[in-house]
Amino acid sequence: MFRPLGRWLTTRPGNIRNLSQSARGPQFPRRPPLSSSGSSAPPPPNAKILAFAQYSPWSSSFPGSWRTRALLQSAFYAVSIVLATNYVDSVWFPSGAETGYASPREIKVAIEKLKQAFPEEDRVSTDSNVLTEHGSSDNSYHPASPHAVVVRALSTEDVVTIVKIATECRMPMVVYSGATSLEGHYSGVSPGSICIDMSAMDKILEIHEADSDLICQAGAQWEDINQTLKDKGIPLFFPLDPGPGATIGGMVGTGCSGTNAVRYGTAKAEWFLNLTVVLPNGEVIKTRRRARKSSAGFDTTKLFIGAEGTLGIVTEATLRLAPRLPIKVAMAQFGNVEQAVNAVQDILNSPYGSHIQCVELLDDHMMDAINTAGVSTKLLPVRDTLFFKLQGDDPAIKLTAKTVQTIVKKHGSDRFEFARTDQEAEDLWQNRKYALTSTIGAHPGSRCWTTDVCVPVSKLPELVYETKKDLAEAGLRSTIVGHVGDGNFHALILFENDDELPKVTDAVHRLVHRALDLDGTCTGEHGVGIGKKQYLSEELGEGTVELMRSIKNAVDPLNLLNPGKLYPDKSKSRTQ
Amino acid sequence: MFRPLGRWLTTRPGNIRNLSQSARGPQFPRRPPLSSSGSSAPPPPNAKILAFAQYSPWSSSFPGSWRTRALLQSAFYAVSIVLATNYVDSVWFPSGAETGYASPREIKVAIEKLKQAFPEEDRVSTDSNVLTEHGSSDNSYHPASPHAVVVRALSTEDVVTIVKIATECRMPMVVYSGATSLEGHYSGVSPGSICIDMSAMDKILEIHEADSDLICQAGAQWEDINQTLKDKGIPLFFPLDPGPGATIGGMVGTGCSGTNAVRYGTAKAEWFLNLTVVLPNGEVIKTRRRARKSSAGFDTTKLFIGAEGTLGIVTEATLRLAPRLPIKVAMAQFGNVEQAVNAVQDILNSPYGSHIQCVELLDDHMMDAINTAGVSTKLLPVRDTLFFKLQGDDPAIKLTAKTVQTIVKKHGSDRFEFARTDQEAEDLWQNRKYALTSTIGAHPGSRCWTTDVCVPVSKLPELVYETKKDLAEAGLRSTIVGHVGDGNFHALILFENDDELPKVTDAVHRLVHRALDLDGTCTGEHGVGIGKKQYLSEELGEGTVELMRSIKNAVDPLNLLNPGKLYPDKSKSRTQ
Repeated sequence: MFRPLGRWLTTRPGNIRNLSQSARGPQFPRRPPLSSSGSSAPPPPNAKILAFAQYSPWSSSFPGSWRTRALLQSAFYAVSIVLATNYVDSVWFPSGAETGYASPREIKVAIEKLKQAFPEEDRVSTDSNVLTEHGSSDNSYHPASPHAVVVRALSTEDVVTIVKIATECRMPMVVYSGATSLEGHYSGVSPGSICIDMSAMDKILEIHEADSDLICQAGAQWEDINQTLKDKGIPLFFPLDPGPGATIGGMVGTGCSGTNAVRYGTAKAEWFLNLTVVLPNGEVIKTRRRARKSSAGFDTTKLFIGAEGTLGIVTEATLRLAPRLPIKVAMAQFGNVEQAVNAVQDILNSPYGSHIQCVELLDDHMMDAINTAGVSTKLLPVRDTLFFKLQGDDPAIKLTAKTVQTIVKKHGSDRFEFARTDQEAEDLWQNRKYALTSTIGAHPGSRCWTTDVCVPVSKLPELVYETKKDLAEAGLRSTIVGHVGDGNFHALILFENDDELPKVTDAVHRLVHRALDLDGTCTGEHGVGIGKKQYLSEELGEGTVELMRSIKNAVDPLNLLNPGKLYPDKSKSRTQ
Repeated sequence: MFRPLGRWLTTRPGNIRNLSQSARGPQFPRRPPLSSSGSSAPPPPNAKILAFAQYSPWSSSFPGSWRTRALLQSAFYAVSIVLATNYVDSVWFPSGAETGYASPREIKVAIEKLKQAFPEEDRVSTDSNVLTEHGSSDNSYHPASPHAVVVRALSTEDVVTIVKIATECRMPMVVYSGATSLEGHYSGVSPGSICIDMSAMDKILEIHEADSDLICQAGAQWEDINQTLKDKGIPLFFPLDPGPGATIGGMVGTGCSGTNAVRYGTAKAEWFLNLTVVLPNGEVIKTRRRARKSSAGFDTTKLFIGAEGTLGIVTEATLRLAPRLPIKVAMAQFGNVEQAVNAVQDILNSPYGSHIQCVELLDDHMMDAINTAGVSTKLLPVRDTLFFKLQGDDPAIKLTAKTVQTIVKKHGSDRFEFARTDQEAEDLWQNRKYALTSTIGAHPGSRCWTTDVCVPVSKLPELVYETKKDLAEAGLRSTIVGHVGDGNFHALILFENDDELPKVTDAVHRLVHRALDLDGTCTGEHGVGIGKKQYLSEELGEGTVELMRSIKNAVDPLNLLNPGKLYPDKSKSRTQ
């Protein structure tokens, strides 16, 4: 296939001359060039080159008339001008992902423009503490960089203004809100990124109780939304429940889930009815209407869920709400994880499965940590344990609890507890709620690396068994808490200091490969960020990753939105 | 912004000469050109042009030496060769959506290649009946065209072979399987398309009961899958239930739903765990692993759901299954649609909401048609009616039925029936099941245009009321059946002959706009195809449609996959 002319001329300008010479070759008889001295002595070594000099219209020995000389010179200048404009064009108006980002001087210009656009105090910050804090996290140990500037957005229009300035100055943009990420999602980008802080965009804009939906800004926290609904006496709630402090924008970006996912599904289900998104070109779109379902084409809402802020900046969302039902809590203990997992599947497939709002596995190490940390007033036996939330009115919960008790017994559980009062329920659930805190509390001075994987449910016992064995062999202390109904679990690996980090990362690496070998995923709910991007090609295949990259490139050709996250770095050996 | 050189040269080759002349202008003193006769008489009108002819190296009056003449001529030939190769390049190896499709001669070549690749009988057909039947539908009255050739695929590898031949010959591809589409999805494409018939790829490949999932080919019908699971004694089922005969591939393509959506959500929820897809470049990808959830990037599975075969060809799917529960049926009648809708919302938000598997609204016209058609042994009062499927074991259903009865009574229902036995349940549900058949059966000789829209649930009564009024005013007979829990309904509009079609299409047009005005969608579950694409820009906004188009262009730059469907035709007034 021929290369397009533009590229050819830019990269190999000599070709036209070569072609011209070869075209000339057969058409005219050759004779020895005349030397300027006219002598017939053998020409010196560079005589041939000198002989060709006569063809130059700048040469004193050029044989043509002044008109020919003029024509040739001007043709040369014309071609030079075209090549130069083409070059300037490619540098000043870049159109590919290989484009370089803003220079230090341009970053200064961008910051100045942001300050002019947002003259109010506390809107634009270049304070080094703020820059560092917005680019790093206490929750993750991935490499982190500060941003060049942090801008607080208060509206969709603000985000449009920031995107336009960033695009003009070719500055990467990273969105920040709840700051609960575990995989380095909001780390700064070298040589300098604009951090768009969405945490002040935390308003609920409309509540449609009759339609079971509400519209809010992306910086709103899911806990605040649910509290507001409760305070207003609206019997609905938003069922996606990732870590405390998570915001709607971050939940969309990560494709979150949580303990309720076994009943309500994840962010990739149908809880986000539509999104307002600022695209990299500064355009504001709504992905859908407010109707609960639509088959009007593929769902562009889903394009931004799990995209980690690499395809657009979500500023508002319409959330579907579920009825808030009374809850009771139960606990069952087992001799091993396999018994527990099998019991869970039987319970979920029973006629009362839909009354199970949560079912969480805490391994023996975690139960030990909870006892040691003293979260609960009551010491619990150190066994692999399931915690349940049952939902419904009293008769329904009673029937469900009876079903659960029968099934766990059938699968070898030797202890079943059902919290009859709200206080008992709260006390029992505390153990699950403070799992992470207990893990650290039980090991004062320790730090904790949290990671998650997810496999087909039937593979979970094998995965947990092998992982615990591996961590023990590596001399690492750890606890496990799992959303066992979905085959998803978190390993909380403890370490004392940076010297131990390689041992931890190696163990995480082995854990991920173990999950992938079992037809699982490198991350069930924490997202990819920086931490997991190396696994995506293995998990999805290079073709699927390339599809994701081509969509990224189509939507964000300058690669300004959260670059360096999510998509694996291209292997140099790949030709594509 | 400067245009790249390649484009410039291709589109405005004169520019270099213009530039060269202007560059020459100021550098050299001008004097009057010498005329060939040497006389000083005033030059004739075209003398100036003739004067310039001396600069041509082909002119007899060219003043330069033979070397200069040679150099200039060869420069001209060189540039001509480069431009010609560039042009040939752009024609032979096109890279844009504006590309033309195969010529009639190339179509013949493609068919020959397909016959060579699939020499078995009944694999490649050019029989005119087959071509027409695969390109049109009894269910829709949109313009339909036959295909140029129909190929039966038996494996993913077959599809790859077909895609490669189609791409080589630039032939559009349209996938066909269940043939239940209502919006012209699989109509042929002018001047000639390859129809890929997937109906023989109907196998279940693996069943993982412990993980509640199965893997099947795209041509498998959902009813057959559920029957197979039942026959094998596996207590699970696939809950998406669009029209009878629909296949998994078509259900993915349309983003289907059905009567169970109120309990289980739609195809855009999490029932498709992963897909095997042949991309337009012939590459085979798997969109995800088999784990129930993953936050490893945005969900490429979702990219193909609702894409109507425009982004890739789905050949296999991993389906998540739900526990199959005992079912009972109930019915409640109301004085108007508003009462019915309000009752439904209260029921769904109650602690027994999760036991409602279906809740279907049939309007008074539909009940009349059912009575007239004689589907049921028992005549039912002609009122707006809700049919319920309740799921769970006996105690759960009893409690649910009691809740439903209390709530419908509160909302003014004057008749509630609960089918206690399986036979009673089947008899009662027959009315809902044969709604479409009854509509036609009650009006012998009539044809029926089926359309659907969806709005926020609270807007449904207004939409139904206005629509019925409008249809009556237009003199059109119609019935309505709605998935009322989701705000989605189908209008079945009757007509006798083609003369009445404009009246019907006008009414559908008004119905769609009424839905859009209520923050709804032009299609809740039938898809866009040809029939609804004119509404997408209004529904989603031009920015969202442009985003969809840019993804289509990134994935299928030659626009070979089901062109002319889904994406609205570009308005000529748009500059983008």
